[in-house]
Amino acid sequence: MIDIEEYGIHEGISEIILTTISPGGVPNAAPMGLHRKDGRLFARIYNSKTLDNILSKPIAAANIVDDPVLFVQSALSDIESERFELVDSFPLLKDTLGWIIFDCTCKKGENISVVELSPVKGKITARKLQPINRGFNAVIEAAIHATRYVVLKEQKYFDCIEYYNSIVKKCGGEREKNAMRLLYEFIGIQK
Amino acid sequence: MIDIEEYGIHEGISEIILTTISPGGVPNAAPMGLHRKDGRLFARIYNSKTLDNILSKPIAAANIVDDPVLFVQSALSDIESERFELVDSFPLLKDTLGWIIFDCTCKKGENISVVELSPVKGKITARKLQPINRGFNAVIEAAIHATRYVVLKEQKYFDCIEYYNSIVKKCGGEREKNAMRLLYEFIGIQK
Repeated sequence: MIDIEEYGIHEGISEIILTTISPGGVPNAAPMGLHRKDGRLFARIYNSKTLDNILSKPIAAANIVDDPVLFVQSALSDIESERFELVDSFPLLKDTLGWIIFDCTCKKGENISVVELSPVKGKITARKLQPINRGFNAVIEAAIHATRYVVLKEQKYFDCIEYYNSIVKKCGGEREKNAMRLLYEFIGIQK
Repeated sequence: MIDIEEYGIHEGISEIILTTISPGGVPNAAPMGLHRKDGRLFARIYNSKTLDNILSKPIAAANIVDDPVLFVQSALSDIESERFELVDSFPLLKDTLGWIIFDCTCKKGENISVVELSPVKGKITARKLQPINRGFNAVIEAAIHATRYVVLKEQKYFDCIEYYNSIVKKCGGEREKNAMRLLYEFIGIQK
């Protein structure tokens, strides 16, 4: 029995990296909102590699991470295979603070599907003191706007990225600044 | 000897609640950016009760908290005396994940002073897994804009608060929603 509270998964949406596996055995990692509402856990997943993988093999893992670079990379690109490790033949990220493997039940929609998540197994690998860093938080927001920007190319998303980058420059450390450099690279902007 | 890394205080700015004490023995709590740069720890403090307290008694404590309500309350109001506890006759917040007491050296400026912080003593009280919650992060941003709004009453700060509130409504849990209700109360807006 997994105590979700122990993993810091409270009511609302926790931002985690969801790992899945393709029929051919290729691991995938994508940032995802893990919803907790009225005791239920679920994700709302757009048509994507993640959804295809879950439809073919209904297992997924929430990887709880605190590495801003990993977040940006999984949002806008692929994660190199050596950054995964297999647990019970299922791919997890190596650099997690904790993970939970779920059985998935998918309610398929046209553009977006609701995937119910039932915890099967989990592990907390590191408990740390993590004071608030606005720079770290700004990277997460920037990454979300960047995923929209690369598809829609609308100026308003770019303006948001620039705004959050100003917070990273002021409040972030080297990790956060590296994450933003990578983000700009992925969206094709030279800084 | 205190290992600052253990407390999650990395390069950049960590948002903590700084407690100080007045000559009359009244504790004060205010959210503050704890800067770490090139091995130095310091805070940039505007003329305020916090600064007056440090000038009269050059000690301050960084309280590392994860309670969004506490953050909003200390940003926009006073913290009730029963929420403090005394350690070595110095006031700390009861609900912390960890704290560090510093000796302060103040370089007084006209509007803003730079206070160097030398760690004296610290304690980690709780190590938790804390997945990213955009709602929690949005409360912190909203609180910062609210401190500007109450002084300057400019619409742009209010617009920022409203934007971050939309994130809280979507991603936050009950704690975050309560914190925003309190925030709107403090800035005199009925929701």
